[in-house]
Amino acid sequence: MDARTEISSLGEFGLIDHLTRNIELRNASTILGVGDDAAVIDHFGKQTVLTTDLLIENIHFDLTYTPLQHLGYKAVVVNLSDIYAMNANPTQLLVSIGFSNRFSVEAIDEFYEGIYAACEKYGVDLIGGDTSSSQKGFIISVTAIGEVRPDKFVQRSTAGQGDLICCTGDLGGAYLGLIFLEREKKIFLENPEIKPDLEDEKYVIGRMLRPEAAKELIDFFEREDIVPTSMIDISDGLSSEILHICKESALGCVIYEDKIPIADETRNAAFKFELDPTACALSGGEDYELLFTVKQEDYDKLVLNEKISVIGFMAAPEDGKKIITRGGNTFDITAQGWNAFTI
Amino acid sequence: MDARTEISSLGEFGLIDHLTRNIELRNASTILGVGDDAAVIDHFGKQTVLTTDLLIENIHFDLTYTPLQHLGYKAVVVNLSDIYAMNANPTQLLVSIGFSNRFSVEAIDEFYEGIYAACEKYGVDLIGGDTSSSQKGFIISVTAIGEVRPDKFVQRSTAGQGDLICCTGDLGGAYLGLIFLEREKKIFLENPEIKPDLEDEKYVIGRMLRPEAAKELIDFFEREDIVPTSMIDISDGLSSEILHICKESALGCVIYEDKIPIADETRNAAFKFELDPTACALSGGEDYELLFTVKQEDYDKLVLNEKISVIGFMAAPEDGKKIITRGGNTFDITAQGWNAFTI
Repeated sequence: MDARTEISSLGEFGLIDHLTRNIELRNASTILGVGDDAAVIDHFGKQTVLTTDLLIENIHFDLTYTPLQHLGYKAVVVNLSDIYAMNANPTQLLVSIGFSNRFSVEAIDEFYEGIYAACEKYGVDLIGGDTSSSQKGFIISVTAIGEVRPDKFVQRSTAGQGDLICCTGDLGGAYLGLIFLEREKKIFLENPEIKPDLEDEKYVIGRMLRPEAAKELIDFFEREDIVPTSMIDISDGLSSEILHICKESALGCVIYEDKIPIADETRNAAFKFELDPTACALSGGEDYELLFTVKQEDYDKLVLNEKISVIGFMAAPEDGKKIITRGGNTFDITAQGWNAFTI
Repeated sequence: MDARTEISSLGEFGLIDHLTRNIELRNASTILGVGDDAAVIDHFGKQTVLTTDLLIENIHFDLTYTPLQHLGYKAVVVNLSDIYAMNANPTQLLVSIGFSNRFSVEAIDEFYEGIYAACEKYGVDLIGGDTSSSQKGFIISVTAIGEVRPDKFVQRSTAGQGDLICCTGDLGGAYLGLIFLEREKKIFLENPEIKPDLEDEKYVIGRMLRPEAAKELIDFFEREDIVPTSMIDISDGLSSEILHICKESALGCVIYEDKIPIADETRNAAFKFELDPTACALSGGEDYELLFTVKQEDYDKLVLNEKISVIGFMAAPEDGKKIITRGGNTFDITAQGWNAFTI
C-alpha cells in the first residue's frame, strides 16, 4: 500500500458510496440493496435463515498476521458456514464495520475486496450494513441471510439414536495454523530481523486465515436427496459441537479416533509442535467444516462423497458421550472448545 | 446493583442460556429462534425488510449517564425506526454484544431488560445474536427484520415534485438532551459533590436516552390507506434527511421554519443553552421521527393526525433545497448532521 487516503476526506456517506460503488446483485430475491433505510428481499415460497457474528480485533483476529483481504473473506465465510449448517443456501449479507483513524480508505478497500470475493464465490449479495468510527481497533459484524424450502432446514436437536455421525473435510488444521502464526509473531517481536518461513505450513495457515464454507455438501445433499437428521458447523472444535448435538437431541454418542479426518499437513505441523493431532481436531476451532448425522440407510449414498467421513454414531443417552481411541481405550468427550471468556 | 456475578462463572454458552431463558415469541413467522446455528422465519407472501446498526461505547453512547436498560431499549428502537421508515412492520431481531470484564452478569441483564422491554412494546421476537468479550468497552450490533406487503415498501428515491413534506412528533429534543447530559457530566467530573438536577430537562433527556420509534404512523398509514411517496427516519437531523430524499429523488425542496415542530420543553432548553431551536432540529440528531412525502391529495387525511406536521413541499431540481425563515428570508439547506468521522 503506497497511497493513504484518510477516511475523513470522504465522510461517512462518501465512504459508503465508495465501498458499495461496484456492488453486483446476483439473486432475484434481492429487491432493494444498499442505499435506503433498510434492504428488501423476497422469498418465493421459501423460508429465511438468519445468523450473525461479531468479530473484534485482538479477540477474534490479530492484524499483525492477518491480511485485511483474508479477514473480509473469513468474516463472510464464518457466517455462511452457519447458514449451510441449517441445510440452507445463503443469499444476502449485511456487513457493519467500526474502525479507528489508524485505518486508511485503502485498508478498508482491502477488507472489502475480501468481502466481495466471498460474495462472488458463494453467490451472495451485500445488501446493507453500517460504518462507524471506533476509539480503538477494528470491529466487524456480519449478518447472513439464507433461504431454505419449508421444513427442509436441519436443527441440532433432531438426531436419532443409531444415526451415523459424519463430518466434512479435515479437522485441526486451523488451530495449528493459529499456533504457528502466534509463534512466528512472538519470534518477530523479539527479533524483527528474522523473516518467517511460512512455506512449510502453507496448508494449516490457509486453513486459519482463509477458510471456506461447506457449500459443496449442501449441494450434494440436494442432488442425492439426503436430509441430515441434525447438523452444526465446527467452529469451536469437534468435541464442543458433538456435545451440542448430544445435549439438544438428548442422546449419547460414540466417536472413533481413527475415523476423525486429519490432513497429513496438519499431522506434520502437530508433530513439530509436539501436539496431539486428535486433540487439535477435538478442541481446536475455526475449521468451519460441518458435523451432521444421517440415518443408517443413507450410508450407501454418503460413501460416494470422498469429502465425507463417518466418524461414529449416536448412542442411547445412558451410554454417555465417548471417544474410542486407536489403542482401544474409551474416554469421555469433554468440551474444551474455545471460550472467549476464560482465555 | 449489589450482587456482582462474573461473566466467566457462566461461560459463553451459559451466558447465552441465561440471557435467553425467558424469551417469548410473538410472531407466527418466527419458526426457529435462539439456540441453533441460525434462526428461521417464514413470510406468508410478504417481503422482508432488513437493517443493521453498530453502536460503540464512547462513539455512540456514554455509560457515565446512560443507564444500561435505556441503552438496550434504544439500541432496538434505532433499528425499528429504520424498518418503519420502509413502511414495514418489524417482526424479529438479532442482537450481538461485545463487552470487557468490567461488566458483570447483572449489568448485562440490565441491558437485556431494555432489549426485552422494547421487544414487548413493539411486538418483535429476539431470534439470535452473538456474545463476545472485548478488550475495551461495550459494542452492540443489532439487526432488525420486518415484513411488508410486496410493493408497499417506501424508498427515499420516489418523492414527486409538488409532494408535501411531512414529519412526525417534534424535533431537536434529543440533541438538547445530549447537550444537557454532557454539561452535567463535565460539572460532575470537576466536582463530584454536585448532584445534577435533571427534573427540569426530563423531556429532552428522555428524548435522548429512551426514544421511541414511530410505529403509530405506520399503523395510521395502513388504516387510512395512505402510501407515502418517500420516507426516511430522522437520525442525523432534518437537514441531512431531507437532502437524502432530494438527492435520491433528484428534486429540490422548500421547508418553512415556522412549520418545523419543536416542543416547548425543547425551546426552553435551547433558550437556556443559548442555542437556536431550529438549528437543533435541523442539525441535531437522534430524534427517530419519520420524514416523508405524500401526494397533495392526501392532505385531508393527514390533518386528522395531530402527530403529523406538514413542513414544506418538494420543488423542481433547479429550485434548490431551501428553508424560508420566520422572518421571510430564504437560505440553502446544508447538511450538518452528525458525522462520526469528523467529530
